[in-house]
Amino acid sequence: MAATARSLADLLEDGHQLVLTHGNGPQVGNILIQNEEAHFAVPPQPLDVCGAESQGMIGYMLQQALGSELARRGAACPIVTMVTQVVVDRNDPAFRHPTKPVGPFYTAERARTLARERGYPMREDAGRGWRRVVPSPQPREIVEMPAIRSLVESGALVIACGGGGIPVWRDPETGALEGVEAVIDKDLAAAVLGLGLGCDTLLILTDVPQVALRYGRPEQIAVPYLTVAEARRHLTAGEFPAGSMGPKVEAAVRFVEGGGRQAVIASLTEAKPALAGQAGTWVVRSLEDLPGALRPSQTLEAGA
Amino acid sequence: MAATARSLADLLEDGHQLVLTHGNGPQVGNILIQNEEAHFAVPPQPLDVCGAESQGMIGYMLQQALGSELARRGAACPIVTMVTQVVVDRNDPAFRHPTKPVGPFYTAERARTLARERGYPMREDAGRGWRRVVPSPQPREIVEMPAIRSLVESGALVIACGGGGIPVWRDPETGALEGVEAVIDKDLAAAVLGLGLGCDTLLILTDVPQVALRYGRPEQIAVPYLTVAEARRHLTAGEFPAGSMGPKVEAAVRFVEGGGRQAVIASLTEAKPALAGQAGTWVVRSLEDLPGALRPSQTLEAGA
Repeated sequence: MAATARSLADLLEDGHQLVLTHGNGPQVGNILIQNEEAHFAVPPQPLDVCGAESQGMIGYMLQQALGSELARRGAACPIVTMVTQVVVDRNDPAFRHPTKPVGPFYTAERARTLARERGYPMREDAGRGWRRVVPSPQPREIVEMPAIRSLVESGALVIACGGGGIPVWRDPETGALEGVEAVIDKDLAAAVLGLGLGCDTLLILTDVPQVALRYGRPEQIAVPYLTVAEARRHLTAGEFPAGSMGPKVEAAVRFVEGGGRQAVIASLTEAKPALAGQAGTWVVRSLEDLPGALRPSQTLEAGA
Repeated sequence: MAATARSLADLLEDGHQLVLTHGNGPQVGNILIQNEEAHFAVPPQPLDVCGAESQGMIGYMLQQALGSELARRGAACPIVTMVTQVVVDRNDPAFRHPTKPVGPFYTAERARTLARERGYPMREDAGRGWRRVVPSPQPREIVEMPAIRSLVESGALVIACGGGGIPVWRDPETGALEGVEAVIDKDLAAAVLGLGLGCDTLLILTDVPQVALRYGRPEQIAVPYLTVAEARRHLTAGEFPAGSMGPKVEAAVRFVEGGGRQAVIASLTEAKPALAGQAGTWVVRSLEDLPGALRPSQTLEAGA
């Protein structure tokens, strides 16, 4: 958290305004393990509630770490974490095909019990045991968007949509919301959040320095930029692993196609050079949208 | 949650603007039990982080239930939960005398282990086992107040300071914040929140209909109102149980003494009649501040 805070504070010092979101995989995984281990003493909470807990937990740590870093630099600003619900479609095909493993590994016996007693779809995971799988539907609408916008406009740094947001269904008759046991991809939710706020850049910070083609093979090559057309072509060809770089590139493409200026995928430790075009992978509509550091040389092209 | 939402929606329909806060005793207790039961698999989180989890959990349920109730009534408004840190004083005498029991009951053996390994002060609790006790310091300042104020002014309904807020220390040199393993009383935090926002009324909804004098004795009597002077006298005389009605009356007194118009303590199911002076207990500066329904009759007084 402290390292992340330093990285983000560098961007703020450069004059960028930030809206933050984050994943929650390991944290909600731990909360689910705690729910399971204590299930004889405390009724387990449904996944949407565990997601809300993880938003509180991670948001708190992030707002405190970043607030403290900014205070030390004499650049304090209001930082707030907002518990965020994200509407998904009841008819999203994901609900017919749950694919996202969550929580602990179970024995076959316990898996059968959970399938029977709680109706969990369970799947054997590469010889390591059984895991619950949940649907991963598309983010449609951020319920708290008006309040997020109002706070952003007031100059606050908002942390929202943590873990992809808490998935909810909206009753078409009454407008009432209901939590859903599912997981929304955090990168796709980030694209919706950024587009909803009119952000110019979607910066996806992760643990690899760049997007790679032919990932994991001897001829693997890192790419400093992709047009959305190229990125879409690679996505269709299955070039990026699902649940990893796949949704990041998909989110980048959706952001730029939806009206964002650029999306940048980079290492968490290289946020600042990445925004300057000196690290990471840029995804843009056309090569003219690249920063100077990345733009293919006119001279070379003319000479080619 | 649904019942609470209906009660609060009634107030909104009457034209009141609300800022909400809530306790977290049972919920953070359950989270602590889950942390303990899973401690061999998942490192237990410190109490401040568990408090942040409970803010996410309860805020989510409340914003969803209230949002849905308002949607059904065709009166939707932005509702947001903000993860809230509350500054406490490092020199607060509470840190020398931890008094607040939290989390599970332990055997004497496990209590000794926790005291040794994690430095928890442990206390035997009325023959039921051992519990961890933590300090309960005074709330000094709400870190996120500027953002809360900005959102309230934008017309949003804000849920903040859940569980009394997450207690933090502020480094006097750098301004950096650090979480503290303590519990801030929720009613006292509510008074600070209400005063900070310039609210006219502090409404404390609980599970008894009114404040009682000589509570639990045959001559117990419920009181419809108290002046702050009377309330302060009863507090000093130890009239109200600590950890129960005591902090509620103390919060009411602080709110009115601090510039609030009135504080009302009432049953969760009687919020609306209480605000009309037809239920609960009002705490006011002087009898002239009481609503008509409660004001002592001039005729009777003249005749006395």
